[in-house]
Amino acid sequence: MSFLKHCSRIGLRSSIRSFSAGSDALVDVKTDNKGIATVTMNRPPVNSLNFHHLEALHQTFLSLERDRCRGMILTSSSPTVFSAGLDILEMYQPTIDKARQFWRMLQDTWIKLYSSPYPTVAVINGHSPAGGCLLALSCEYRVIVPKVTIGLNETQLGIVAPQWFQDCLKNVIGVRKAEVALTSGHMFTSDEALNVGLVDEIVNDKEAGLVAAGKFLAVHSKIPVLARTSVKLGFRKDTLSRLVNGREVDTKLFIEFITHPKVQEGLGKYLESLKKK
Amino acid sequence: MSFLKHCSRIGLRSSIRSFSAGSDALVDVKTDNKGIATVTMNRPPVNSLNFHHLEALHQTFLSLERDRCRGMILTSSSPTVFSAGLDILEMYQPTIDKARQFWRMLQDTWIKLYSSPYPTVAVINGHSPAGGCLLALSCEYRVIVPKVTIGLNETQLGIVAPQWFQDCLKNVIGVRKAEVALTSGHMFTSDEALNVGLVDEIVNDKEAGLVAAGKFLAVHSKIPVLARTSVKLGFRKDTLSRLVNGREVDTKLFIEFITHPKVQEGLGKYLESLKKK
Amino acid sequence: MSFLKHCSRIGLRSSIRSFSAGSDALVDVKTDNKGIATVTMNRPPVNSLNFHHLEALHQTFLSLERDRCRGMILTSSSPTVFSAGLDILEMYQPTIDKARQFWRMLQDTWIKLYSSPYPTVAVINGHSPAGGCLLALSCEYRVIVPKVTIGLNETQLGIVAPQWFQDCLKNVIGVRKAEVALTSGHMFTSDEALNVGLVDEIVNDKEAGLVAAGKFLAVHSKIPVLARTSVKLGFRKDTLSRLVNGREVDTKLFIEFITHPKVQEGLGKYLESLKKK
Repeated sequence: MSFLKHCSRIGLRSSIRSFSAGSDALVDVKTDNKGIATVTMNRPPVNSLNFHHLEALHQTFLSLERDRCRGMILTSSSPTVFSAGLDILEMYQPTIDKARQFWRMLQDTWIKLYSSPYPTVAVINGHSPAGGCLLALSCEYRVIVPKVTIGLNETQLGIVAPQWFQDCLKNVIGVRKAEVALTSGHMFTSDEALNVGLVDEIVNDKEAGLVAAGKFLAVHSKIPVLARTSVKLGFRKDTLSRLVNGREVDTKLFIEFITHPKVQEGLGKYLESLKKK
Repeated sequence: MSFLKHCSRIGLRSSIRSFSAGSDALVDVKTDNKGIATVTMNRPPVNSLNFHHLEALHQTFLSLERDRCRGMILTSSSPTVFSAGLDILEMYQPTIDKARQFWRMLQDTWIKLYSSPYPTVAVINGHSPAGGCLLALSCEYRVIVPKVTIGLNETQLGIVAPQWFQDCLKNVIGVRKAEVALTSGHMFTSDEALNVGLVDEIVNDKEAGLVAAGKFLAVHSKIPVLARTSVKLGFRKDTLSRLVNGREVDTKLFIEFITHPKVQEGLGKYLESLKKK
Repeated sequence: MSFLKHCSRIGLRSSIRSFSAGSDALVDVKTDNKGIATVTMNRPPVNSLNFHHLEALHQTFLSLERDRCRGMILTSSSPTVFSAGLDILEMYQPTIDKARQFWRMLQDTWIKLYSSPYPTVAVINGHSPAGGCLLALSCEYRVIVPKVTIGLNETQLGIVAPQWFQDCLKNVIGVRKAEVALTSGHMFTSDEALNVGLVDEIVNDKEAGLVAAGKFLAVHSKIPVLARTSVKLGFRKDTLSRLVNGREVDTKLFIEFITHPKVQEGLGKYLESLKKK
């Protein structure tokens, strides 16, 4: 894949290990003796996805692929939040270059996750709005703890979620339910998420979630890899192609949006209000 | 939009008010202080959709759009019927010109409703076959009273429902359930309609339906309009484009069908039988 | 249709009767006085679909179409198996010509079944993996007896199910559930199949299944044929076209797969192990 080459060329590869090295690693990866990797997002307090966090995830997905991992569990080190979504600081007064790099890293990370040759499960052990929901939706199976919320809530903020975010929701819960959810930017409770098919199971806690994820992967990791991956990509290729073929347009839309004076003004006020707390 | 211009040019605009003026208005519109409009179809006894009734609906949708309405409830003044569908008299021995005008008005009305920038709810307070079901399906949310029936039943009469009627059903209940329903022209009871996802709630009566509709709109009318409308059109654009790009073919199919001698013969006999009752 | 012409030309037509003649007929057909045909697959012990069995089914579907049958029930003479799927012997050391003929007969048979002008119900009175599941999925309604399994399990064997097999599942149970099922090659129990929408009813036994099928057909066989068939083909044309336009590629993929030395080696070992039992 060209991403791998690209990353190798710019020297990112050599730093993979360090991403999951210390307790301050943005992403912690533990692989068991069956080749199942547990990937824990670890950017306190709420796993806001900034460039470096996404880069760490992207590198993790690349290395799992290279190491022929047999299955991956994505979860969070936070007791209350899976991921709060994209880091708003990446959008406040960025240079065009920084904004572009950020967005392309998000695209790269999603493409790797969504098309992974290994089976994937999200153990959603906390709230999961917007970009956090996207990560969960991109896995093949989802379990969630009780009394948290999950959804693509961009519309509530006056933002149109990128087409690929929307496609991911549509692919999971169907056209009609996705329309109602996205027109209102609805955040589903755990119970609602189960009823609508946005998640597959409610589990008591993270531990139980890891067990449930293990059961799914115990079945799927035994399926012949080539046939399985071919089937998976068959299902996902239209959604993937739509972004891959329209990356530049998608990136421009993002940059145009965040460089709009009104959007910057709104972000500025929001960040100011956070400081006062 | 070109429809607005067109209507303005032919002087229809000035007559909007009269559509909802007296008790004999074909469509009654009441807008509350939050900008929520309740649109009541009022062509006794069964809201048969003839040219003038559709024109009144079309004008209503245009004016709600112009007045930046925040939400719309579509319901019926009849205690037993939401809408009986297209008026059969429009199809019996029409001139080609009249038939064409009728069908294009139906297309215009549906396009406006299906693509409305304001959120829409159908309070289905009575039976709703064929064209009546189409109106309900084109809203974003549906509540129904108990013990009525709803469905696209054209196939039962040997008629193939137009593609856009079928698409609307498919978008709401999914491919497989729509195939079973449309191959048999099935009329769903209220309970069946809820189970299959054709409606979202069963309510005790029209009053309760208006309350339920109000709750949906209370959430949706607060969502930033531009983002919301963009998301909604994103979901509906394929279905809309399919008709907009094929309007002339769709119109011709209708005219060819109703001008067929056997069809006219059937309609004649049917109308004769009604007179005898 | 060109298939009909083709078959007529090569003299297959005259042999239709014999397919359902004796107790050794591969397919038994009984048509009642309402024009409802019960088609019983009868190739003991497990209705493995070899060339001749498919040919018999294909001829049956052609003759039902020609005789303007009003409805068809597909079931099995085996007390435990609906159909075990494609006959593995057709794939073991075939000539290219034989392999091609086999695959094209499978395509022809499916095209006829999937696009039939008469309504179709599968009474799944036993296990139904792979090709057996395809036949069931291609009908319009499915009832199943308790405690059997059904599914497209090819992936478990390292085989990618042909696109049209996958499309059939997707059309019935939706994208998301089909992805989970196909990535793992899941065999559904009767209960799971009902929950996921893969079948429409669980019935106590074959007799009860024939009654349930009769009820479905009693409704559907009364619907005007032309309109009904037009609606049905409208729903199925994309899936049909995908195969019809790609038949040669689909055939080549099959031949390339089964002529691969490793595949032949695997088949050989498997057949050897069967002999020892």
